[in-house]
Amino acid sequence: MAAMVRTVVFLCFCLTASQVRGSHIPKEMNRTLQNLMRHYDLPPEVRLSGKPVFSREKLTGKMEAQKVYLGGVLETYEKLFSHMIKQQPTPSPQTAGNAVVQNNGDDDVRGKLGYILKMVHDLRKHRYQEQETLLQNLQSLKHIKMDSLEVQSKALWELPWLYEEASSLVNTNSTIKQLRRRRQARRRFKSRPQA
Amino acid sequence: MAAMVRTVVFLCFCLTASQVRGSHIPKEMNRTLQNLMRHYDLPPEVRLSGKPVFSREKLTGKMEAQKVYLGGVLETYEKLFSHMIKQQPTPSPQTAGNAVVQNNGDDDVRGKLGYILKMVHDLRKHRYQEQETLLQNLQSLKHIKMDSLEVQSKALWELPWLYEEASSLVNTNSTIKQLRRRRQARRRFKSRPQA
Repeated sequence: MAAMVRTVVFLCFCLTASQVRGSHIPKEMNRTLQNLMRHYDLPPEVRLSGKPVFSREKLTGKMEAQKVYLGGVLETYEKLFSHMIKQQPTPSPQTAGNAVVQNNGDDDVRGKLGYILKMVHDLRKHRYQEQETLLQNLQSLKHIKMDSLEVQSKALWELPWLYEEASSLVNTNSTIKQLRRRRQARRRFKSRPQA
Repeated sequence: MAAMVRTVVFLCFCLTASQVRGSHIPKEMNRTLQNLMRHYDLPPEVRLSGKPVFSREKLTGKMEAQKVYLGGVLETYEKLFSHMIKQQPTPSPQTAGNAVVQNNGDDDVRGKLGYILKMVHDLRKHRYQEQETLLQNLQSLKHIKMDSLEVQSKALWELPWLYEEASSLVNTNSTIKQLRRRRQARRRFKSRPQA
């Protein structure tokens, strides 16, 4: 009996958890995605073969690192959807006037892609701003002119400070961890029943 | 008198702090860098004009984000030094045999660049491994074939899970912050002297 109760409680918990998780995707978005999946359909043996585009295995490590990676994934989705929209035929003035009818129809792939693009864009703009700045800073590193003597000279002058910063930052991190561990050990010792 | 003591203590603290910071750069590295700065010298009005190559202003935000950016900076330094080494004339077999003598000479720019490259590489390899993996994952996002129907179809199928993950991760973060704030408030309330 107890085992059955435990199972029921566990199932209820799973259902609640999945509802909480599922609530992040609005119904309209879910419906639009289903439509687009049908439009961009491939035989399952092709779709399920090979590697995924965005591997889940890469979502490991510290939460902040996961957020940076997810910020990059959302940015890539925006580029992909913008590209897919460009591949669609431009609506003629007549159909553009019928936008409301078109949006509800199954064939308005352009509109559906635009809607999903907006959803992804909004999530990134409102919740991934810090990550966006970091990604832009990382991107700017790719444009450094390595052939320029000015860049080479400046970079040499800037290295001592940056090397120190890079060394001290990892040290600060491990020092914080050490202090935290000591504090926890002290707390455990204090809470231990005295003889 | 008290003000003077305070000033002396403050100066001692600053000196100790700068020594601790300075200790991250070995003497040999510092000396080699000074030599290279002389070799790649530019008139101060050129060196100090315009923007720096690696802006210090970009080192803001959370520590984990700073570490990711510094990981990228170290990676860029490695590429830059490798490029600068390639620009140097290859040592002839005779001078190559005199490597020890050459390394101590002022003119062995190639050897000095190689030494600094190794120092930067070692710091990145031993202390910035996590950031390296993340940077590689972000880099792989740049190579996604946006024209491929397979990629477009797979990406659509993968979006619901990733969108949920991206939404729930920021929510988890703010929930953790809320819980932490509540715990701290509770602690403050407990430690307040009772009337």
